[in-house]
Amino acid sequence: MTTPTHLRLGVAGLGTVGVGVVKIIRKQAALLEARTGCKISITAVSARSKTKDRGVNLTDYAWEDDPVKLATRDDVDVYVELMGGSDGPAKASTEAALAAGKDVVTANKALLAHHGQALAEQAEADGRVLRFEAAVAGGIPVVKALTEGLAGNEITRIMGVMNGTCNYILTRMQSAGLPYDTVFEEANQLGYLEADPNLDVGGIDAGHKLALLASIGFGTKVSFDAVELEGIGQISIEDIHQAADMGYKIKLLGVAQMTGRGLEQRMTPCLVPETSPLGQLDGGTNMVVLEGDQVGQVVLRGAGAGEGPTASAVLSDIIDIARGTRISTFGQPAQSLVDAKPAQAVTPAPYYLRLTLQDKPGALAKVAAVLGEAGVSIDRMRQYGHDDTDAPVLIVTHKTTRAALDQARAGLAKIDVISGDPVALRIEEI
Amino acid sequence: MTTPTHLRLGVAGLGTVGVGVVKIIRKQAALLEARTGCKISITAVSARSKTKDRGVNLTDYAWEDDPVKLATRDDVDVYVELMGGSDGPAKASTEAALAAGKDVVTANKALLAHHGQALAEQAEADGRVLRFEAAVAGGIPVVKALTEGLAGNEITRIMGVMNGTCNYILTRMQSAGLPYDTVFEEANQLGYLEADPNLDVGGIDAGHKLALLASIGFGTKVSFDAVELEGIGQISIEDIHQAADMGYKIKLLGVAQMTGRGLEQRMTPCLVPETSPLGQLDGGTNMVVLEGDQVGQVVLRGAGAGEGPTASAVLSDIIDIARGTRISTFGQPAQSLVDAKPAQAVTPAPYYLRLTLQDKPGALAKVAAVLGEAGVSIDRMRQYGHDDTDAPVLIVTHKTTRAALDQARAGLAKIDVISGDPVALRIEEI
Repeated sequence: MTTPTHLRLGVAGLGTVGVGVVKIIRKQAALLEARTGCKISITAVSARSKTKDRGVNLTDYAWEDDPVKLATRDDVDVYVELMGGSDGPAKASTEAALAAGKDVVTANKALLAHHGQALAEQAEADGRVLRFEAAVAGGIPVVKALTEGLAGNEITRIMGVMNGTCNYILTRMQSAGLPYDTVFEEANQLGYLEADPNLDVGGIDAGHKLALLASIGFGTKVSFDAVELEGIGQISIEDIHQAADMGYKIKLLGVAQMTGRGLEQRMTPCLVPETSPLGQLDGGTNMVVLEGDQVGQVVLRGAGAGEGPTASAVLSDIIDIARGTRISTFGQPAQSLVDAKPAQAVTPAPYYLRLTLQDKPGALAKVAAVLGEAGVSIDRMRQYGHDDTDAPVLIVTHKTTRAALDQARAGLAKIDVISGDPVALRIEEI
Repeated sequence: MTTPTHLRLGVAGLGTVGVGVVKIIRKQAALLEARTGCKISITAVSARSKTKDRGVNLTDYAWEDDPVKLATRDDVDVYVELMGGSDGPAKASTEAALAAGKDVVTANKALLAHHGQALAEQAEADGRVLRFEAAVAGGIPVVKALTEGLAGNEITRIMGVMNGTCNYILTRMQSAGLPYDTVFEEANQLGYLEADPNLDVGGIDAGHKLALLASIGFGTKVSFDAVELEGIGQISIEDIHQAADMGYKIKLLGVAQMTGRGLEQRMTPCLVPETSPLGQLDGGTNMVVLEGDQVGQVVLRGAGAGEGPTASAVLSDIIDIARGTRISTFGQPAQSLVDAKPAQAVTPAPYYLRLTLQDKPGALAKVAAVLGEAGVSIDRMRQYGHDDTDAPVLIVTHKTTRAALDQARAGLAKIDVISGDPVALRIEEI
């Protein structure tokens, strides 16, 4: 593979990110050529509507209605897939581009979370590269940091707040004291939510990202289906306030961790210490924490979405190719990635429990007895004064297995001194 | 350039970092080969003492007393320079390695800050690479993030806390309420200081790092001599406490910024908001903030020193070479780097002023008049009650030029109501 002197791009998808990419390539042609020694230009573009005004001049580029035709044009060296969607045109055009001997740069987390292994194998069988910096955490160069910067490490854990919309909602609930439904509606009005909001608030989008990072970090095939997913829809303003009172913030936190029991992948609401970098992350910003046996913790923080940041990430992949840098999609040959054995039990952790205790004699004793029987020991407990008959009780447990926690929850469901369902949230030790 | 299948290293310098590199290469041979498709091994090593027990088995490697001989051995592909020092054996052996057609990986910030341009030109003239991830911010992959991850951006500003010892001292002064001299001595006892402590507390070490990042970010030749350097030796516990009272932390902060007036490079004590990521950075950790026109702010945080973290960075450069990644030392051909025109005036900023006012009628009015005449306007002011005749006065100015600030300071020196010298510290807007 020789270093190219001219790289011709075909860009499919002219939404926010696609327009951002076009703008950079038009504005920074000289800078990009100085940095890469290679002319980078766009040959052709494709999108749903040819006539829509996108605020950027497209007249220099050939137009293709069909992204597959774009991806296979003779005058395209790199196919830049920015349409999105795990299947359909994104998948068909990516496959076609690879089959036609093109390199591919994509921002499509869903595509790679579902078909990354097959696509990477296809690319590598033919000596092509398939890169996806923009698919994870927007402008933060985290794929590069993990694949290259920390490649001398055995990765021990990957954590991240990787959906800005969820973090915006949780932050706004806390700062404005508003319930989930109200802030969800606000976010919707502001255009922060995907067409299918469950991709955001259900943790699916962030789960895709976590699964991709886990593959790189642990040398395993992407296994999105094994990610334990729980969205933020059940988080109450009361839990946010009570957690804060105990020194924690609630985050939709991704954790991927290789253990003796197998690979753990979770994208669930967790409590993190409010003084930790993750706890201090307010608003729509993203953060990824990479842990390696040599380097310890490396924390990366930046914009997880938006035109400029995401286009910046797309450009970094294009620039790599222009410089002759050719790295396997997941950091080692796709053929050498192993099946991830999902861990059957999660790493023990402290848990936050909130339950509403009825004003009956011995109520607290019954709760304590249930926890004790399950082997869940209490680190801290707060019971609040009550005007009526019910009193909120907050418990932070010592580190416990989830089996013990589940046993305790089952036990709590059987005693007659608790109103409603207890809330249990993991406290991630960071 | 074809991708190598076996990379043979010569490692010069077996201090903390060198031993860390040897350990990783011994322990992770299989992982490194899986990730690079290339066998990575050590052929020969060199250090001052052949007999010293370093807790790692060196018997598999040839020994060279002379690093120049090591660097030019036929069975060495990559010369790994971990001796340190801006001249002497480090420079001679690096030049010799490049002349002999070797790639070079170094952790030596002083060498590159002083001779980086010449060495990079020498390397590139012959198609060799000279890489230095470990020279800046230890385990944080910041050279890679800036050179590659953000290469689609016009870089606007680079900021960083890049000397862990200084940050340790400032943090410890605040938390323990101890004066500089006491904490300096503590740090010395703990072995945190360089043999020449001024490299740390004088800001020189961190200044070297800043100059290297500025070269990459702005496409300019390294110009360490143009870095405005001010150490932390004059920072008093009183300023730390007063700054905290106004919502700030004092950090030895590097700032490199390209302006219409030229390139600014400063490594000076600054106030930063205590709620900002830089303000929250306590202890020996490093943080670099990269700002690009597209990506906004990307913040990277991690261990800035130590065996594992620094060796992790050295390995990332070695792994790049093993994968066939060949990037110019400063992100674009050294021949294309331009002379940096140093800015003659720094970007206006708010300043923190502390002065001790004598208990005389109209004293504060005189101070206010001097500031007003200089065109320095006051954002916030606090005057504290006083038991004796002198009262501390704290002023946070609005954004002001340094010329105006200097005029104000000259004016304050002439009035007869102030005891001692006023303290002035820049407040960096982040």
